[in-house]
Amino acid sequence: MKHYNLGFIGFGNVGRALARLLVAKSAELRQLYEIEWSITGLATRGMGWLSRPEGFQPSSLLSNVVDESSCPAHSIGINEWLLEARPDVVFETTSLNHETGQPSIDYLTAVLKSGSHAITANKGAVVYGYEELSQLAAGAGKCFYFESTVLDSAPVFSLFRETLPGVKLRAFSGVFNSTSNVIIETMEAGRSFDEGVRMAQELRITETDPAHDVDAWDATLKVCALAKVLMKLPLKPSEVRREGIRSLSAQRLQAARAEGKPYKLVARAKLAENGSSLNASVKPEQLGSTDPLGNVRGTSLAVHFELDMMPGLTITSHRPNLQSTAYGLLADFVNAVRDKSKVQGPTSKVQGPKSKIQSPKSKNSSSR
Amino acid sequence: MKHYNLGFIGFGNVGRALARLLVAKSAELRQLYEIEWSITGLATRGMGWLSRPEGFQPSSLLSNVVDESSCPAHSIGINEWLLEARPDVVFETTSLNHETGQPSIDYLTAVLKSGSHAITANKGAVVYGYEELSQLAAGAGKCFYFESTVLDSAPVFSLFRETLPGVKLRAFSGVFNSTSNVIIETMEAGRSFDEGVRMAQELRITETDPAHDVDAWDATLKVCALAKVLMKLPLKPSEVRREGIRSLSAQRLQAARAEGKPYKLVARAKLAENGSSLNASVKPEQLGSTDPLGNVRGTSLAVHFELDMMPGLTITSHRPNLQSTAYGLLADFVNAVRDKSKVQGPTSKVQGPKSKIQSPKSKNSSSR
Repeated sequence: MKHYNLGFIGFGNVGRALARLLVAKSAELRQLYEIEWSITGLATRGMGWLSRPEGFQPSSLLSNVVDESSCPAHSIGINEWLLEARPDVVFETTSLNHETGQPSIDYLTAVLKSGSHAITANKGAVVYGYEELSQLAAGAGKCFYFESTVLDSAPVFSLFRETLPGVKLRAFSGVFNSTSNVIIETMEAGRSFDEGVRMAQELRITETDPAHDVDAWDATLKVCALAKVLMKLPLKPSEVRREGIRSLSAQRLQAARAEGKPYKLVARAKLAENGSSLNASVKPEQLGSTDPLGNVRGTSLAVHFELDMMPGLTITSHRPNLQSTAYGLLADFVNAVRDKSKVQGPTSKVQGPKSKIQSPKSKNSSSR
Repeated sequence: MKHYNLGFIGFGNVGRALARLLVAKSAELRQLYEIEWSITGLATRGMGWLSRPEGFQPSSLLSNVVDESSCPAHSIGINEWLLEARPDVVFETTSLNHETGQPSIDYLTAVLKSGSHAITANKGAVVYGYEELSQLAAGAGKCFYFESTVLDSAPVFSLFRETLPGVKLRAFSGVFNSTSNVIIETMEAGRSFDEGVRMAQELRITETDPAHDVDAWDATLKVCALAKVLMKLPLKPSEVRREGIRSLSAQRLQAARAEGKPYKLVARAKLAENGSSLNASVKPEQLGSTDPLGNVRGTSLAVHFELDMMPGLTITSHRPNLQSTAYGLLADFVNAVRDKSKVQGPTSKVQGPKSKIQSPKSKNSSSR
């Protein structure tokens, strides 16, 4: 049995759902992976940088009652917090900055430098910080994982990392923004754009500012994240031809639906002839029912890959919910701690497991 | 760099495609995974049990010219062959026996007992031998992998093994037999059942005996393989309600297509109320375009999973070809040799890599 100290930076809907899921799955984590955990660090805008080496009561965290009787230590910033909470794994779920990926990138940098695994739900950190953060992680023999950033909890990054050795990705397309599709379907049903936005907000699937969804920023960042990680091509958001859904009239949407080729906000990236650059776009497209993305409805998401070894591989996540998103982070956690020997490739395979077996123990003995 | 001796049992379409693929991907295998290989054993019904410790010329194998000048050793059976060829990995692609999984199971048993990884394209071995073979593999610290048995090269078994820790599979459905769907679509187009069979045979997607496809044996075995491996439930082919496509008239198929709900041969398995048994069926069903399997066409295959952590996850493999199938075996090979540290869980993680680094060397030094 190995014990892991967990740190949370950000504790909104996703962070709370993850804490609930960790509690719900704790028996299976013990039985299947010999994983025990305690939350020793919690950082939120409201409460500041809290740490409790002996572990917080998840129930009290979830009920917003961080009992002061337990006198959790307040740190003045992330580095002091990392020293106090001594996390083995940090889950970063702060709100997204579409232009810079900050402060997420700075947080994850500090986390990796402190020797913890860094797991984020923040696609900005992948788009603007992937090279640096992944190099930092490799150098430290730690993992920088972010499975839930693109297709919720459906495996995309781990799919390529763990199951598809040596394939070459030539192109991909995807339905990455459920808010846009909920709005489109609401307007197809004869209601207004604003009603569609409200509908999506009630479903709690929109970005903090829904403009990021309807103006296709969310999908554009996801295209860049996939291009960077899966194709190793540094695609900038500004290089993606981006068109949102504001220009679509209810009339046009209803006609397309009647025609059997409804509109969706579709993201595409294709390797250019030169093989070293990408043609990428996010725009409304009409999709027929035989299209690989043609049966994606409502809040469902999908990605279609064109690979040298397979003509087409489509992953569809149907109606993901908050728990699904949280599961993406939980899966990253388990894969990070059970995959240590693979982080740095073959040469590290001998050291990897040894340090893996020891590090939690030493952390453990010192922290409880 | 690590060298692996490879053995082939069976060298038909799939085996040959794999040999071609190994040659085509050899540079990437070296660069990305430090993997070098040579084919030191080849067994076919026609040529018998051949071995050549210094490695066969893949080109000569593919051109059917196993030059006798090189005097490959003839063994009298698999055990002697394993001693002669000393494979680190054996690819088993013999033809399928739907009732027993033999001789595949006996071959794979011998392979694992000899200390090699066992990789098969033979679903019969999974349906009738999974428990024994996987226990044997775990005990030997080797892998028994079979990714290409159900959905061609699309990740299904490795998806759960590597990317979805701790999920519970509650139900799945799938379009697993492309021959049946090609026949159905041919009849929808106004041609006969027999023309459909010939069409499928020209596409080289049928079983040796197409009756196994149209009478739903192929799909039934795939349901049992998924149930055994992913749900740990010992579902027997005889426990699957099985109905083939022979009874479908062209008229009925055309009417269903016109209605927008064409027939497909659909496989289903669902956990029963008691949570310990399955309700499973393979039968023709009408699927609408919004069904998760609704946009599967022609030779494409798909599986839809219902998981405790995700409402629905669909994997669709579009128009897989012979190379795709071969890639499934190649991926198993790479995952087997890079995953050694994970085969037996945490306790083996320290020894795993060490033996992994050494075994090929020792094999290497002795074999060349």
